[in-house]
Amino acid sequence: MKPLILITNDDGIEARGIEFLAKQVASLGDVVVVAPDSPRSGQSCAITVTKTLQLFKVKEEGSVTYYKVTGTPVDCIKLAINDVLHRRPDMILSGINHGSNSGVSTMYSGTMGAAYEGAIIGIPSVGFSLCDHSPSADFTPCAEVVDKVCKAVLKNGLPASVCLNVNVPVGVEIKGIKVCKQAMGYWTEEYNKIVDADNQISYSLTGHFVNTSPKDSTTDEDLLSQGYITIVPTSCDRTATSAISYVENIL
Amino acid sequence: MKPLILITNDDGIEARGIEFLAKQVASLGDVVVVAPDSPRSGQSCAITVTKTLQLFKVKEEGSVTYYKVTGTPVDCIKLAINDVLHRRPDMILSGINHGSNSGVSTMYSGTMGAAYEGAIIGIPSVGFSLCDHSPSADFTPCAEVVDKVCKAVLKNGLPASVCLNVNVPVGVEIKGIKVCKQAMGYWTEEYNKIVDADNQISYSLTGHFVNTSPKDSTTDEDLLSQGYITIVPTSCDRTATSAISYVENIL
Repeated sequence: MKPLILITNDDGIEARGIEFLAKQVASLGDVVVVAPDSPRSGQSCAITVTKTLQLFKVKEEGSVTYYKVTGTPVDCIKLAINDVLHRRPDMILSGINHGSNSGVSTMYSGTMGAAYEGAIIGIPSVGFSLCDHSPSADFTPCAEVVDKVCKAVLKNGLPASVCLNVNVPVGVEIKGIKVCKQAMGYWTEEYNKIVDADNQISYSLTGHFVNTSPKDSTTDEDLLSQGYITIVPTSCDRTATSAISYVENIL
Repeated sequence: MKPLILITNDDGIEARGIEFLAKQVASLGDVVVVAPDSPRSGQSCAITVTKTLQLFKVKEEGSVTYYKVTGTPVDCIKLAINDVLHRRPDMILSGINHGSNSGVSTMYSGTMGAAYEGAIIGIPSVGFSLCDHSPSADFTPCAEVVDKVCKAVLKNGLPASVCLNVNVPVGVEIKGIKVCKQAMGYWTEEYNKIVDADNQISYSLTGHFVNTSPKDSTTDEDLLSQGYITIVPTSCDRTATSAISYVENIL
């Protein structure tokens, strides 16, 4: 039996990135796309608990079937596993995201949210992102790494609780692939303040990233800026084991 | 100057749990509550990117000032830091959640989302949850651990990138406090399928948790069931360092 590959994203079913990804892996197995009906960027691992979800079949194209869901990327994975797929998928892919998900963006990313959900339920999962936010982004630079990573993951699996966060740089000559650490950092000056005619204030998210990791070529942010495709093995076991004795001592 | 304590939650500004928490720590410093205007359970680290946010002052009660935001718990922290508070908070608290956030629930939890945001921006942060979903839950069993943990964290801080996930059991005699690991597991049979008069199907989230961690009294799920309050130090650095060489080898 051919491998079953489940694909979602956070840019929504109509994004170029998910279509590119589905076509790129179509030769590796049976592909089912179950994606949000509209953009859900920044949705992290959010799940819909206060309302119901709807699921619609969109189209079949070659060996790829497309569905859309009125929910988040994690909702899409859960609903696909529970009600769309007739067998357990062999691999879950998310993306290709329009825009980077390197560094601590992995915390907010809906793309990575879906990959974490895969890791939670024990299915080898990979999130792919291209460092270009444009809706018309050219995903060609992702082709080789998608092929290489998906074949390796299908063949070998991934360690328990671990999924992969793959980012592909743009505007540089790609030097190769590096498996590395997540850069730490934070966003600053985060909101534009909009005052309307009635003096009502609204806040619009903006801001820029401050990288606090040492510049030592071991983190994804650094390596992306040097022209490498980065792969960070990320875990849904968030225990900071090394901090257990610290906390015991201060209590 | 008194410590500045920022509080949010994911059950919304009107929940009993957040009022209990604010009152419980009022003697420890200046307290500002900035919480979602409505329940935002399961919002994880979600941020609002596709619309603007509004902020409203709700009330002042003693030394505690309350604001509400039309966004997620993480939005509340970001907006508070950027536009409400006049100095950097010394500690961020989230909760007290109505319901457990033990095990891999930490991935979906809006309560913990806010605590992770605190860890990202380098402020000692703690999420508190009571294992009782009821809106009228009695938070008295949390009083002692809130006091103890908040005093310890204000005095000593927390390691970089680490926040605390505190869960308090109910219906048992509390045996003590244990600092421990996050249990691993997943949810199964997750949706109720609702068919309306027009044969339209809707899906409502439900399901039950399957604990896949060994029963060895080192994880929060196990220890909660034995009657312990659990504290898991959790990290916003999600790199699975031990998996780096594995991934290098399979590519």
